Amino acid sequence: MSTNSAEKRPKPASSQFGDQIPWKKRKAELKEKQKQWKKAKIIKQLEKQKRQETAERAEQEESQSKKGRAFTVSVALPGSVLDNAQSPELRTYLAGQIARACVVFNVDEIVVFDEQGEDVKSVEGEFKGVGKKGHACIQLARILQYMECPQYLRKWFFPVHKDLQYAGLLNPLDSPHHMRIDEESEYREGRVLNKPPKQGKGSLVNCGMRKDVRIDKQLQPDLRVTVKLSKTQNQESRLYKGVVVAPHVPRTEGGLYWGYTVRLASCLSSVFTESPFKEGYDLTVGTSERGSSVDQATLSPFKHLLVVFGGLQGLEASLDADQNLDVTDPSDLFDLYLNTCPDQGSRTIRTEEAILISMAALRQKITAAFPDDSSSS
Amino acid sequence: MSTNSAEKRPKPASSQFGDQIPWKKRKAELKEKQKQWKKAKIIKQLEKQKRQETAERAEQEESQSKKGRAFTVSVALPGSVLDNAQSPELRTYLAGQIARACVVFNVDEIVVFDEQGEDVKSVEGEFKGVGKKGHACIQLARILQYMECPQYLRKWFFPVHKDLQYAGLLNPLDSPHHMRIDEESEYREGRVLNKPPKQGKGSLVNCGMRKDVRIDKQLQPDLRVTVKLSKTQNQESRLYKGVVVAPHVPRTEGGLYWGYTVRLASCLSSVFTESPFKEGYDLTVGTSERGSSVDQATLSPFKHLLVVFGGLQGLEASLDADQNLDVTDPSDLFDLYLNTCPDQGSRTIRTEEAILISMAALRQKITAAFPDDSSSS
Ligand SMILES: C[S@@+](CC[C@H](N)C(=O)[O-])C[C@H]1O[C@@H](n2cnc3c(N)ncnc32)[C@H](O)[C@@H]1O
Ligand SMILES: C[S@@+](CC[C@H](N)C(=O)[O-])C[C@H]1O[C@@H](n2cnc3c(N)ncnc32)[C@H](O)[C@@H]1O
Repeated sequence: MSTNSAEKRPKPASSQFGDQIPWKKRKAELKEKQKQWKKAKIIKQLEKQKRQETAERAEQEESQSKKGRAFTVSVALPGSVLDNAQSPELRTYLAGQIARACVVFNVDEIVVFDEQGEDVKSVEGEFKGVGKKGHACIQLARILQYMECPQYLRKWFFPVHKDLQYAGLLNPLDSPHHMRIDEESEYREGRVLNKPPKQGKGSLVNCGMRKDVRIDKQLQPDLRVTVKLSKTQNQESRLYKGVVVAPHVPRTEGGLYWGYTVRLASCLSSVFTESPFKEGYDLTVGTSERGSSVDQATLSPFKHLLVVFGGLQGLEASLDADQNLDVTDPSDLFDLYLNTCPDQGSRTIRTEEAILISMAALRQKITAAFPDDSSSS
Repeated sequence: MSTNSAEKRPKPASSQFGDQIPWKKRKAELKEKQKQWKKAKIIKQLEKQKRQETAERAEQEESQSKKGRAFTVSVALPGSVLDNAQSPELRTYLAGQIARACVVFNVDEIVVFDEQGEDVKSVEGEFKGVGKKGHACIQLARILQYMECPQYLRKWFFPVHKDLQYAGLLNPLDSPHHMRIDEESEYREGRVLNKPPKQGKGSLVNCGMRKDVRIDKQLQPDLRVTVKLSKTQNQESRLYKGVVVAPHVPRTEGGLYWGYTVRLASCLSSVFTESPFKEGYDLTVGTSERGSSVDQATLSPFKHLLVVFGGLQGLEASLDADQNLDVTDPSDLFDLYLNTCPDQGSRTIRTEEAILISMAALRQKITAAFPDDSSSS
């Protein structure tokens, strides 16, 4: 990290001496002064750097203990829920409801699984057009990703696509990482620009601000990056300064909710086995009206919580469609199998409703599982 | 209550005697027999009636102590939320989301209030067409009423209306009082038929079953009534038997959720002052992200709970628009002013989402307020 690269140069000192002194002596003196001045400057800089580093470390330690959130929450649901909508517009709207429900409850990962036995692994690949049945997983994943992306980056990362034809109907997520242009924030999502950086300097990044950001690294153009902006910015510079951080840093160090990642799973079992977390999920919750009452449940502290929802036919159907699973009772698959709405007044709760209801019921339990964590209280 | 009005007549006894007996004697004997038979029948009937009454009373007592729910839950929200939708279809869908959210949490009354200072008191009245701004209260109330009405009665109570143009997009409520044709149930909603009842007999009611129901009273045709079907039905009769009960009986005696009533209020204060309950609401909850955390709240036992939601601008705006209210801080208006989603990951929660989230958080508190009530656990 180079802290002086964009610092203001000192003004030339040519006018600070009188005319009485002979030129040679004057030159030597000048040189000596400059030398000392440079030395002093370096010492000052080093001191400043040290102060900064100490402050940053203290801040980091403080934020990790006070602000940061170490755990993650993942939600999984079958893409087939989209096939439950009555029109392409409502299909899109439904995807938006799911995205918003997850954001309201600070969900870090959404897993869209296939319960129809097709094998889909990426949002690329063949596409049959919006509104058609099938390809629900891909379309849901695409809309979820689109919504998660800050508006100022969308035109780059989401070229026109039929899956997004009715995106205008989507209610915005309004999450903390969707910054307005003049909003102040320690972190920002950005896109590495395709401007070749100068020798020894980092790439330029568009973070949706009035100026581009010079980061500390040279990175591939068009990469999406999370940038931590420097505390002190030179207002007169053409650029802001910042460093690239891992996408989890706003959460783990800043205690901020920073959107979700989207993952496709080709079947229910892949939801568990293909976890992006080395250790996998250490607490798994299945949801069903046939589960035990959430009122009596307590959550033990966890690192990575996974909450799984079923589709029109419930998790039993997802289980049946999965050839890798020998279990017949979905409750055997989870640490907890919960009815999150005992005494429900409707015969069926729709998946998009169940996410809001279940996460509302679990929120209190999550808070209770981390009594010392002020960020989730 | 006349229990024998629809009973099958005994078959004529003409063929039960031989030819050996002279006509006069025969006639006298016959008369005597008939007399005795009638007497026996009356005694039998009285006994049966008594048995029935005792059984019913026992059943009622049992149901009141075990099954019945004495308290009610009301939800109030401004009709203006509809103006937040982007198309007439989504406007309708949004109304449907609200209806479903309330049904899932067994809400007994939905109050739609005007926060724009218009004065609307009924769903009748001038109407400017679906999709237009304004008239949101009336349209929301009409769609809520339409959805609450069992499908088999809708064509009678809801003639074609532009407010209901996109009703086909609504997800059904699937509540216990929306019975399928062959479903068995102690109670049913019905419509009094326009067939003049015979002297001394009750009206006929269409309860969406394969036969009409003969009730115990003569009532105006086209009235919507709640019918309690008799436990024992004569399978060979052309009619079922039942009695008319007050609409609250399925809840207070049967412990069933029986849909909601809809009320229009011309301003926020009318929500409180025009309560249909003589005693008014004895526990009122306002909802806002600026309220105190629901996690620390407890509900005291209540008879009539009212939970109030704001629109796009929150309850502050509803308050400002109300000329009858001097309060400026909405928290002064309610017994509790609650943030039902502490640490929300989106800057704003939409009203339709807030209903599901808030009622999910309050459900546990309601259950806790009635520890002896097995029906709400
Ligand atoms: C339409 S429901 C599934 C209904 C299906 N007939 C069944 O019996 O499971 C869709 C999903 O919503 C969730 N859900 C519905 N009611 C729930 C409840 N009371 N508690 C927890 N989850 C529920 C479950 O994840 C369920 O798989
Ligand atoms: C779109 S919000 C209103 C936002 C408005 N800007 C405000 O500050 O109140 C609509 C309604 O949802 C409910 N709501 C939103 N967030 C809530 C929360 N965290 N707790 C309780 N109710 C909430 C309230 O009833 C609110 O009036």
